[in-house]
This record gives sequence, structure tokens and C-alpha cells, in this order.
Amino acid sequence: MNFEGRDILTTENLSKNDILEIMKVTEKMEDVFKKEHFSTLLSDKMVAVVFLEPSTRTRLSFETAVQRLGAKTITIADPKSSSTQKGESLADTAKTIEGYVDCIVIRQPLKGGAKIVADAVDIPVINGGDGAGQHPTQALLDLYTIKKEKGKLDNLKVAMVGDLKFGRTVHSLSYALAPFNPEYIYCAPDQLQIPHNIIDDIKKLSIPYSKTSDINDALKADILYMTRIQKERFEDPTEYEKLKGSFILTRELVKKGKEGIAIMHPLPRVNEIAVEVDDLPNAAYFRQAHNGVYLRMALLAMVMGRA
Amino acid sequence: MNFEGRDILTTENLSKNDILEIMKVTEKMEDVFKKEHFSTLLSDKMVAVVFLEPSTRTRLSFETAVQRLGAKTITIADPKSSSTQKGESLADTAKTIEGYVDCIVIRQPLKGGAKIVADAVDIPVINGGDGAGQHPTQALLDLYTIKKEKGKLDNLKVAMVGDLKFGRTVHSLSYALAPFNPEYIYCAPDQLQIPHNIIDDIKKLSIPYSKTSDINDALKADILYMTRIQKERFEDPTEYEKLKGSFILTRELVKKGKEGIAIMHPLPRVNEIAVEVDDLPNAAYFRQAHNGVYLRMALLAMVMGRA
Amino acid sequence: MNFEGRDILTTENLSKNDILEIMKVTEKMEDVFKKEHFSTLLSDKMVAVVFLEPSTRTRLSFETAVQRLGAKTITIADPKSSSTQKGESLADTAKTIEGYVDCIVIRQPLKGGAKIVADAVDIPVINGGDGAGQHPTQALLDLYTIKKEKGKLDNLKVAMVGDLKFGRTVHSLSYALAPFNPEYIYCAPDQLQIPHNIIDDIKKLSIPYSKTSDINDALKADILYMTRIQKERFEDPTEYEKLKGSFILTRELVKKGKEGIAIMHPLPRVNEIAVEVDDLPNAAYFRQAHNGVYLRMALLAMVMGRA
Repeated sequence: MNFEGRDILTTENLSKNDILEIMKVTEKMEDVFKKEHFSTLLSDKMVAVVFLEPSTRTRLSFETAVQRLGAKTITIADPKSSSTQKGESLADTAKTIEGYVDCIVIRQPLKGGAKIVADAVDIPVINGGDGAGQHPTQALLDLYTIKKEKGKLDNLKVAMVGDLKFGRTVHSLSYALAPFNPEYIYCAPDQLQIPHNIIDDIKKLSIPYSKTSDINDALKADILYMTRIQKERFEDPTEYEKLKGSFILTRELVKKGKEGIAIMHPLPRVNEIAVEVDDLPNAAYFRQAHNGVYLRMALLAMVMGRA
Repeated sequence: MNFEGRDILTTENLSKNDILEIMKVTEKMEDVFKKEHFSTLLSDKMVAVVFLEPSTRTRLSFETAVQRLGAKTITIADPKSSSTQKGESLADTAKTIEGYVDCIVIRQPLKGGAKIVADAVDIPVINGGDGAGQHPTQALLDLYTIKKEKGKLDNLKVAMVGDLKFGRTVHSLSYALAPFNPEYIYCAPDQLQIPHNIIDDIKKLSIPYSKTSDINDALKADILYMTRIQKERFEDPTEYEKLKGSFILTRELVKKGKEGIAIMHPLPRVNEIAVEVDDLPNAAYFRQAHNGVYLRMALLAMVMGRA
Repeated sequence: MNFEGRDILTTENLSKNDILEIMKVTEKMEDVFKKEHFSTLLSDKMVAVVFLEPSTRTRLSFETAVQRLGAKTITIADPKSSSTQKGESLADTAKTIEGYVDCIVIRQPLKGGAKIVADAVDIPVINGGDGAGQHPTQALLDLYTIKKEKGKLDNLKVAMVGDLKFGRTVHSLSYALAPFNPEYIYCAPDQLQIPHNIIDDIKKLSIPYSKTSDINDALKADILYMTRIQKERFEDPTEYEKLKGSFILTRELVKKGKEGIAIMHPLPRVNEIAVEVDDLPNAAYFRQAHNGVYLRMALLAMVMGRA
């Protein structure tokens, strides 16, 4: 399918072929980044990177991607410096910025906010995360990382560990990987297990899965996708203290895991992966963060009709 | 007159010819933007965009203009990240930045602050709004919008609606349009009518005007310039609730208006123009915001001696 | 010595030859800035300017330097927009950004924080100030300013005035100038005199020095390095009021000083140098701020192996 002019708001309406095409372009972009450092592919384009919610990683990753392709950028990095403070609607902000640039990247806290922006303007919009909603570039860079680490997307056993209830990334990953014949291991304390509606969808898709609260079960996977357990999620703080140790990945645990197991994490990490793990070849999470630049270069080029 | 090296602090000292020349250059810049997207006119220049007060629209518009002309930019988007926090004077901040760049765009809350900056440095300074003082690039982009929408600046009937007491833009517009033989309709609740000193000046300039609190009178104009009525302006909130409905522009009202009436608004809008109006060809306010980029490109090029 | 790939964390491990080489490259960069305005020396590079603490001058100076050399930049200007807010370690932030850029400039409030960043990544890191720790680019631009103002670095009498106890810049300067056979006059109220450990080091280096609380003694120097006395440093505010007047430099005092005495200040200034002094040829402090751009261009080019 042709991506020119298209919005990237969610991964749900991407076909298997769409995803494979995005992966292919991302590979090319990794090459551009590593060999030529910069390209002139978008040198006649300008992109607004509008972040109405704090985020270093995603914002800087997009700004890097924009500039590596030769495009210019204008940025809102701080919601407090914005007119939305004065009560302006998201749609009005978007319609104004539409006259300045060729593409809008939007991150804001309202679920569905990216769609509001996309509906308001005629230029392509990329969702950089809309609160409890979607974060499609994260899901796609996760797929790209899996492909790079394991050499393929098909037939992989993927364990997701930590806060599976509120963790947006594991929800998206569960759907995004679905076309590739995966098997899922959901590893979490009972209070933070994967929501029923996602299990229902997984069942409908005939994806084999298991639930566990023992991290040793998760170590049998090809991919170990760690997420942060936030203290604030527990009503009883002593409950948190009791549990958190059971979901911390150590070097010792990795050694017990399946050979070549790839450890991923959407970052920021707090303490759920011990720093001693960083030096292992299995530790893929910083490579994962870096892959975000190539993936975003790909999407920017594609929606502006240059890839 | 030659604009090279000149500061743009106010519209008051611009002659009719100055304004016409700015309009001419702005037209060229709109062409550059729409056909070539980018120019190298200022590719050996650097501009500081110093915003010591929140503002998305004006800041991003200037940053877009700078980059569309090939210049580089450094930005202060957040007053809290600045040394003025440490008690540094505006003049000292300006003298420091003078050594980095070729032009300073300054927005800050102190009336007369832009002049302090301009007096401190030898490079050209553009006032991006100085509190209750001036906002010359807004006034000039308003003129440009009027010219584009009506095909001319001369002999137009202009209605200004809403908060005419505190609304800086309608004050500036009243003066900026004065050389072009206008007629003004000031439409506001009594508490928020146009200040006496402006009426005195308008009389001296022999400009015909009328005052009203009925929006139907305003609909007879060629230009309907809407502004926001802020709740905070009223001592008695019930007074605000009673009045606000009378100054909201609906689709129905527009239909009753003069044929081809052009609706302008400095934005951000809250609810004084119903969203249903946006789709009418009369709705010029987003075009007006976009015109700001072309106007700012023109001023930047002119004060740096390249237009 | 070759600077390629090296971190600039402190001036303490720079040899006399290192410093002289940096001065030489800075001179070239001043030429580039003044004659060509921009260079393509680093046009295949990208630099992250990460400021987790407010600072206009240093941040804008680095961003100017990066862009004057043709490199691209991504910026964190506001700690609150960063993931360190979510508990991410400095090392993790650094490892993520490492994948985006070719060099990191880091300013943050933790003493030793720049070293943490440098240890975490393989790309060169420049310390833009680490709290009570080091601010090497300030020390080096101070040396460059001395060299420009007096035509040499050797055999100069340097008076430092103001808050010598907490003033990081005078500490760094005391060490950085040490290889050039200087003489120091430390002029401060007793409570804010230079710390004993620095005096001990100065003695070991056989540098002649004197201590005084009379600014008239300081006027006999070749360089008068003024710093700000902060009210907060005094337990008794009346003590502050009594003392502050004795450490304010006026035009009258400068006239009594050594012929050609050069007045420096790291800025921001509050009132310790009267504004009337600014017009004297002796006033070198704004030139000093501007020299910061050339010095930072030099360091950026050197650590990335292009000078």
C-alpha cells in the first residue's frame, strides 16, 4: 500500500504487508544513518514536533530522524509554553501549524488526541503517543528490534514481564506481532496481569499464550520484553515491596535463560533490569532505543511520499 | 525607505509607503514559501528567537520564517530556562546574544522591553510582542490578510468585535490601517469598549467610526475582526455569563452579514467563533495565521538587507 | 596531543601545550565566525545539547557553535521535559542519546555528573558545568579572553573580586592560569574569601598571591575578574547590605586602576559592575561572553577530530 499522505495513528490498521514494507524501509534508513549519516531525501520539507507532554527519548528521536533526512523542524517541547494553556483546542493548534509545515508529529496526554489532530489537517500526522491510547512508533520499533535481534519476525516465543495491566507497550506489541504466528508468555503479579479484553482478542486470533507470575517461565522465550512496575500502581506499598524483587532481571537469571534470549525494554528503566545486565550481548534495549531513529526516519519518508 | 539594519518595534513610525513596501515583499515571500518551499536568501545569517513569555503561534511562526529563508536559529522558548531568572537585565541578555547572531526577535511581558533590547544592541531587533505595548508583526500580518482577502487596503469598513478595551491587536489595527481611508465599527459590551485615547486619535485622523454593542451592526462591514472576551476582565462573573453569548459568531450570523465579509481573529480562539463557521469561505483566521509566516519572512529579509 | 575522541570534563588534566593548542584553534574559529560566518567542518555531525539545569548563555553559546560549524543539534533545554524526571539514571539517558548523535554536551547539577555521562558512552562528552564541580569551557574562554585582551597569557597579575568562596569560575581560573607564571590578588569580604585548599594548591605551585578586602588593591592588576556576591550566602542580611557596596565596580574606580586594566565577569551580572562601566574600553565582559562561542567551536571541532 502507498503510505504517501497517510496518518500513522495506530498499528491496528496496518496489514502484515504494511508492516513488512515499513521494516524494509527502516533497514534502508539504518544504512543511510550508519553510512551516510545524513540524507537530502526531505530537504524541501519541514516537520513540527509537537510534544504537549514530557518525553526526552521519543522527542529527540523524532528530531534526530527529521534532521538526518535533511528536513527542518520546529518544536514544542514544553506544554506550558503553548497556547493550549490559553484554552485553545487541539484542532485549532493543529490547523495553525498546518500552515507552517509538511507533517505533524504529535504527543499529548488525551486518548484519541492524535486522531483529532489528523482529522483537523490535510497534511500527514504521526502519533507520538496519546496517553492511554496508542504509541505506534514504539510498537513498530519493537518489531524492528525483534527482527534485527532474531533475524526474523515469524514463529517467535515472546515473554512480556512486569506491569502488563497498565503497560501500553505490551498491549501494542501483542497486537502488532499477531500476524507473525507468535506465542506469548505474560509474566506479572496477579494485580498487574494482562487485561481480559486483550486475552479475548489473542484467543480470537488463535495465538497460543500462557500466564505466570514466575520470571523463570519467561526465561524460556526468544524475546524477554521487560517493563517497569510502578509503585503508584499498588494500593498497599508493602505489597509492592514484597513483589518487586520477583520481577527484577539479574545477570544470573539471564544466564539461566534460553540461549540467545534477547532482552528488550521500552525505557526509561528504573531498577527492573540490573545494570550488570547491560554488558551482556543479550541486552538489546539500548539498540532498541537507537532503532527508534531509523524507524521514525522510515515513517517520515513514507508519509511524505519519498520512500 | 531602506529597512536594512532597522528595528521593527512598532507600526506607529511606519509610513504608508513603508507598509506598502512590506506588503509587496510579503507577497514575494508567500510565493517563495508556496513554490520553492525554502530559500537561501539568509543562509549566512543566524537569528535568536527569544521568548520570555509563552506563545506557540508567534514563536513557531518566526522559527518557520527563519528556516524557510535558510537562516539558522537559536531559541529561548521558556522564560524559566533563562538567566533573567537570576536577575540579569534585558539589556545584558541582549548584549550577550548580540555576539552570537545577526538579528534578535524578542517577546517579553514588559511594555517597552523591546526598545530596551534594541537600544542595547547594534543588530536589528524585531518586537514579537511586549506585554501591553506593541505587537507590530501581528498588525502587519493583519493588514496583509485584509489585502489578500479583499484585494485592497483602501476604503474598507472594518468592524472590531469583543474585548476592545484590553485587546492589543484591535488598537494596533486601528492605527495601522489609518492611512488607507478606512471606516471603523467598534462593537463591544460597554465595559470593554475601545479606550477614549484611541477614539481621540481616530477623530484627529478624521476616520469615520461608530460604537455599538449589537453584533448585527458589525455584520455590515467588509472585515469582521473578532477577539476573545476574557472572563477575568469582569468583576462580576454573572455579568460575563450574561454578555458573552451576544458576542459569539455563528454560521447563522455570518449568513446575515455583508456578502463576502471576511472573518478574522488573532487566535487563539476559545468559543467566540463557533467551529461551524470554520468551513465557510469567509473564515479567514487560519489563513491569517499562515500569512504570519510570509510577513515575518519579509521583515527578517528586509532588516537584514536582503529584500 | 590529539583531542579526537577525548572528553572535556575538567581543565585539570590539560597540559600547558593542550591549552595553547586550544587557544590556537579558537583563534581560527573566531576568524571563521567573523569572516565566513558559517563553516561545513562538521556538516556530517550531530550534537546533543543536554541542559538539565537552566542556563541561557552557555546553552545558546553551544548551540550557536554547533550550527556555525554546520552540525545539526538536538536540545534538552528544560529538565522538566526530560525522562530523568521519571527516575532514569544519567547513564541511561546518555546511552540512549549516544545512538542519535556524535557528541554530547551535558550540563546538570550533580558534581561528577559529566564523568558519569562520559563513562557511559563511547562518543566524546563536553562538560557544560556540573554543579559545584567543573565548568571547563568557562575556564578556557576566560583564558582566551585574557590572551585577547592582554596579548599574552604569561606573567600577568590577576585580581579576582567578589564571592571567591562559592564562585566556581575563580577556582577554575586559579588552576587554569597556573602554568603561565601568574600572580593572584584575592579580593573578598572575609566570609567569602578563597578556600584554604585552593590556597594550599597555589602555594605548592609557587604562585605568588595576596588576600585583601579592599577593591583598591585589586585595581593594580592587569585583569580584574569580577564576580557576583549573592545575598543568600550571608546568614545576616544586614551584613550583606554593609558589605556589598565595597565590591561594586564604578567608572571612577576603573579610572583609578592600572592603565589598560581589563575587566572580566562570567555573567550574569546583577549590580557588581555599574552599567556606566560598559562603555569603557576596559569592559571586556561582553567580548568574553562572545569568545565563548569561538572556544566552543574549537572544542567541538577538536573532539570530533576536525581541528
